[in-house]
Amino acid sequence: MAHIEVDKNLPGIRSLLAFSPATAEPMGILCNLLLRSSDGLSMADRELIATHVSYLNDCFYCHQSHGEIAACYLGGDREIVDKVKADYLSAPVPEKLKALLSIAASVQKGGKHVRADQVDYAKATGATDQDIHDTVLIAAAFCMFNRYVDGLAAYTPADLSTYPARAKQIAANGYGNHVFSENQPV
Amino acid sequence: MAHIEVDKNLPGIRSLLAFSPATAEPMGILCNLLLRSSDGLSMADRELIATHVSYLNDCFYCHQSHGEIAACYLGGDREIVDKVKADYLSAPVPEKLKALLSIAASVQKGGKHVRADQVDYAKATGATDQDIHDTVLIAAAFCMFNRYVDGLAAYTPADLSTYPARAKQIAANGYGNHVFSENQPV
Repeated sequence: MAHIEVDKNLPGIRSLLAFSPATAEPMGILCNLLLRSSDGLSMADRELIATHVSYLNDCFYCHQSHGEIAACYLGGDREIVDKVKADYLSAPVPEKLKALLSIAASVQKGGKHVRADQVDYAKATGATDQDIHDTVLIAAAFCMFNRYVDGLAAYTPADLSTYPARAKQIAANGYGNHVFSENQPV
Repeated sequence: MAHIEVDKNLPGIRSLLAFSPATAEPMGILCNLLLRSSDGLSMADRELIATHVSYLNDCFYCHQSHGEIAACYLGGDREIVDKVKADYLSAPVPEKLKALLSIAASVQKGGKHVRADQVDYAKATGATDQDIHDTVLIAAAFCMFNRYVDGLAAYTPADLSTYPARAKQIAANGYGNHVFSENQPV
């Protein structure tokens, strides 16, 4: 049961966004800017970074949701997603993305854990300043979203079959006000 | 030196907001909604929660900046601020705020660290669902802001005398686009 009185028909962060629509709006805009851009990093890269950080933060709702969205962009390939969650160094992804996932993992521990040599290595693999900026901010933002969901003990559907339909909607239409409509799957 | 090329004349998060004005906008709106409201929690309470979390995250720029803003709302009382940073249980603040600071400290560790008995105790001291929601989201948001600043190694002024002037401006006018203007103190 959630720590505060929220709509029991809405799962995860959607119940909190409905509880507080004023703060939901800039959070949705930020999420769209960070995850629905193909400027530099692809949308798949961005969702994989969000998924990895959510997995490290042990936020089941977020790593399951964003892992499914990443899979949508990857032609349904959940194997890459599962590898990136727990063991990204052995995942079949480019070296540049591995370097950025390493930075994201350091951000998850705390900002000061990011080392200059990690950033230098990411740059050597082709990462731009914008890529590094976006990686750090996606990782930092998911340290917020994950804590919002679990800090208020939002309801997390355990039935994994409910996530893919919602992921397809987001992959098609992005994040936005529709996230807290009741007439939606997960 | 910051990990990416940013304006060296801007300190802390302001250099990052200037680097990425698109994401700066929703982050500024969120910050205003969370910290510049007196609905339930006072602006001083909100800044103290942000300061405590920033201190726990060892983000000098953020705990120094927000501590100064809190002090503005508290008639310049930095003793309360210093106590709340490091030892809130002995700070001269109401029991309700202590209960909320305890929840914020758990959020800083990770969302799942918030226990039902902490929430029950906060409610017993008079905290509403909105207060608990706002506390969790302020704490979660500062886990983002702190990681954004330190994860990109943004320049942090070590000269403490530069923070109060900036704090006075924010206490008077709130957060907003002016945060990344160059014609401002810290």
